[in-house]
Amino acid sequence: MDVYNFSAGPAMLPKAVMKEVQETFLNYQNIGASIIEISHRSDTFVEVIEETKQLFSELTNLPSNYKILFVHGGARMQFSAIPLNLIARSPVRKSCYVETGNFAKQAWEEAKRYGIAQVVSSSADSNFDRIPDARSIQCDEEAAYLHITSNNTVYGTRWNSFPTGNQVPIVVDATSEILSREIDYSRFGVTYAGFQKNLGPSALALVLIRDDLLDYALPETPLLLNYSVYAQDNSLYNTTNTFTIYMMKLILRWIKSLGGVAAIEKLNHAKAKYIYDYLDGTGFYQGFAQKNHRSTMNVTFRLHDESLTAKFLLESSATGLIALKGHRSVGGIRASLYNAMPIEGVQALVKFMGEFERNYG
Amino acid sequence: MDVYNFSAGPAMLPKAVMKEVQETFLNYQNIGASIIEISHRSDTFVEVIEETKQLFSELTNLPSNYKILFVHGGARMQFSAIPLNLIARSPVRKSCYVETGNFAKQAWEEAKRYGIAQVVSSSADSNFDRIPDARSIQCDEEAAYLHITSNNTVYGTRWNSFPTGNQVPIVVDATSEILSREIDYSRFGVTYAGFQKNLGPSALALVLIRDDLLDYALPETPLLLNYSVYAQDNSLYNTTNTFTIYMMKLILRWIKSLGGVAAIEKLNHAKAKYIYDYLDGTGFYQGFAQKNHRSTMNVTFRLHDESLTAKFLLESSATGLIALKGHRSVGGIRASLYNAMPIEGVQALVKFMGEFERNYG
Repeated sequence: MDVYNFSAGPAMLPKAVMKEVQETFLNYQNIGASIIEISHRSDTFVEVIEETKQLFSELTNLPSNYKILFVHGGARMQFSAIPLNLIARSPVRKSCYVETGNFAKQAWEEAKRYGIAQVVSSSADSNFDRIPDARSIQCDEEAAYLHITSNNTVYGTRWNSFPTGNQVPIVVDATSEILSREIDYSRFGVTYAGFQKNLGPSALALVLIRDDLLDYALPETPLLLNYSVYAQDNSLYNTTNTFTIYMMKLILRWIKSLGGVAAIEKLNHAKAKYIYDYLDGTGFYQGFAQKNHRSTMNVTFRLHDESLTAKFLLESSATGLIALKGHRSVGGIRASLYNAMPIEGVQALVKFMGEFERNYG
Repeated sequence: MDVYNFSAGPAMLPKAVMKEVQETFLNYQNIGASIIEISHRSDTFVEVIEETKQLFSELTNLPSNYKILFVHGGARMQFSAIPLNLIARSPVRKSCYVETGNFAKQAWEEAKRYGIAQVVSSSADSNFDRIPDARSIQCDEEAAYLHITSNNTVYGTRWNSFPTGNQVPIVVDATSEILSREIDYSRFGVTYAGFQKNLGPSALALVLIRDDLLDYALPETPLLLNYSVYAQDNSLYNTTNTFTIYMMKLILRWIKSLGGVAAIEKLNHAKAKYIYDYLDGTGFYQGFAQKNHRSTMNVTFRLHDESLTAKFLLESSATGLIALKGHRSVGGIRASLYNAMPIEGVQALVKFMGEFERNYG
C-alpha cells in the first residue's frame, strides 16, 4: 500500500532525498563515518553548509546584503529572538504584529516580554479564516518592525500580497511555506522559517536578515539567540544541527533538479487547486479558509456533518492517507501539501473524498 | 579498511544503532513514514520520548523528584538558560563557577550577563591540566548555585570526586561524559549535557532538574529557555528535535543490552587505561592532563617532538584513525573515546602510535 503522509510538520520529505540519506547514512562521501558523526567545523561539514547557503541564494535570488543564518530551536525560538535582536531599534521599544492565527498570536505574546507589541490588525473575529487587507496595515514609524506570518498552518490561509508603504522593516515568519512559491525576500528585513515543513527535519530555523539590522541585540540576549553571533561565525559558533542542514542541502538540490522554485510553485498550485476545485463542487465538505486567502500548503476543510469526521479519519488512514486530522482550533480535516507531496497523493486523497461522500453523503 | 573516528563531537555512535536507524529510515514501525516525518505530538513519537525518559531513569537510578527535559540548542544554550532559570534564587543574583577549561569559562562569562558570577576556583594557571581539589571549593550561601564542568573535553580532565559541604545546589555540565560512568545525580540540583558525544546527533541538551529548582525563571527568559515550560509539557511545547531523541532511545537500549552504565564504565576504563599505560611507558609521547585528573573520554597528549604532530595526523588518518587533532588550546593529539568507541579502535590507535614511534623515535 502506498502511504501518503499529510502531516502539518514534521512532515514528509522528498522520497529521493530520503533514499540518498539512507544510502549514505553509515559512510558519507567514503570518509568512513556518517555525516552525523563529524565535527561541525570539519572541512567536510563546512562544505555542506556553504553549498546549502549558495543553493538557497541561487534558488531564491537572495540579495548579497542578506545573511543566511541557521539558528537553534525552530521558529518558536525566533518569537523571542526577533524582539531581542530588533526591538532596540525603536526608541520606545515598540513593535507591530498582525494577528492571523495562533502562531502569529504567540509571536506577539512573546514580544510583549521585551517591549510594547501592538496588534495593528487581526482576523480573530472570524476565527482566522482570512488575511487582513495588506493595504490597510499601518505600523507606526517609531516601531522597530512589523511582523507578519505569511502562511497560517493551522487555518490554511496565506498572504497573497504583502503590506506596502510602511517605513519600518517587515519581519516574516515563513515557516510553513518557505520555498513553496517565489517570494522577493528583499522586500523584508528578516524572514525566518522553522525547518520541519519544507526545509528538512525539525529543530532549527533558517533566518534571512538584512545586514543593517544586525548588531541591535539587547544586553540580556542569550549568546545563542544573538543573530550577530551567528552572522560572525557562519552559524558555527557552537555545534549546530548538522543532520538538518545536510538534509536541507539535499532538498535544495532536489528543488533545483525539478526546475527551481518557480517550477515547484506551479506544482504546488496544481496540487492545491485539485482539492479546492473538488471542495467547491460539493456541499458534503466545506473549505475553512476564505477563497481569496487560501493556502497552497495547508488545505483545511470540514465535513458538513461533523459527526462523520472521526470515521473519515479512520477510513482515510486505513487506505494509507495519514495525518489528516485538523488542528483543534479549527477541527475537521487538514491536508498539508508541502513541496514533497506528489500530485499522486493529492489525487488519492480526492478519490477517497469522493468515495467517502458517495458512501455517507 | 576499518575506520575509527576519534572526533570530540559530533562523535561516532554505536554501529548497531546506526544500522538500525538506516534500516528503518524510510518506514518506522511500518507506519509508512520515517520517524523524522511525523508530528512530535503523535502517539508514535510520544511513545519514543516516554521510553527514552524511562530508560534513562532506569539506567541511572534517577530519583523521581527530578524532571528529564530535552532543551533546544545544546549545552552552550544552557550556559544562558542556567542563570536565567536559577539566578533569581539568590537575593543578590549571585552564582559560583569553577573554571576548569574553556567551556567552564564560557559558562561563567555568559552567567555574568544575568548577575554576579564568581569564579571560586580555577586551574587556568596550569592551562587546565588538572581539577581543583574538590574539598577546597567554597561557594557563598547567598549564591543561587555552584557550577562545575564534570569532564573537560578540550583538556582531557575530569572530576573524580565532587565538591561537598556547600549549601547551594550544584549544577553540572556533563556533556562529554554523560552515561560514561556511574554518577549519583541526586547529589546535584541540575545536570545538563549536550547530545553530540554519548547521547546522539547534535543540537539538543538533556537537562535533569530537581523539582524544587523549577519556577524561578527571570521575566526576560525566552519562553523556550524556561525549564518550567519544558517540564509542564513533556518537552513538547514546540517541535522538538525528534530525530535526536529517537536516536537517544536506541542508544539507551544499546547501553542496557551491554549491561548498563556500570558495564559501560568498566569498558571505558579499560579503553582509556590501554592508552594511558602506553603513554606512561614512553617519552616519545607526553600525556597532557595530570595523572589523577585524567578523563576516560578524552585522552590528550603531545609528541615530544612537536614538529612531528602534522605527520602523525596525516599518517594516522591514512590508516583509518580519523579526527585525532587536538584542540588549538592544547595542541597535539586528542583521542575521544566515547561509549561507542570499541576497544579495537583503541588497540589500533596504540598499535599505530608504537609504529610511528619506531619509525620516527
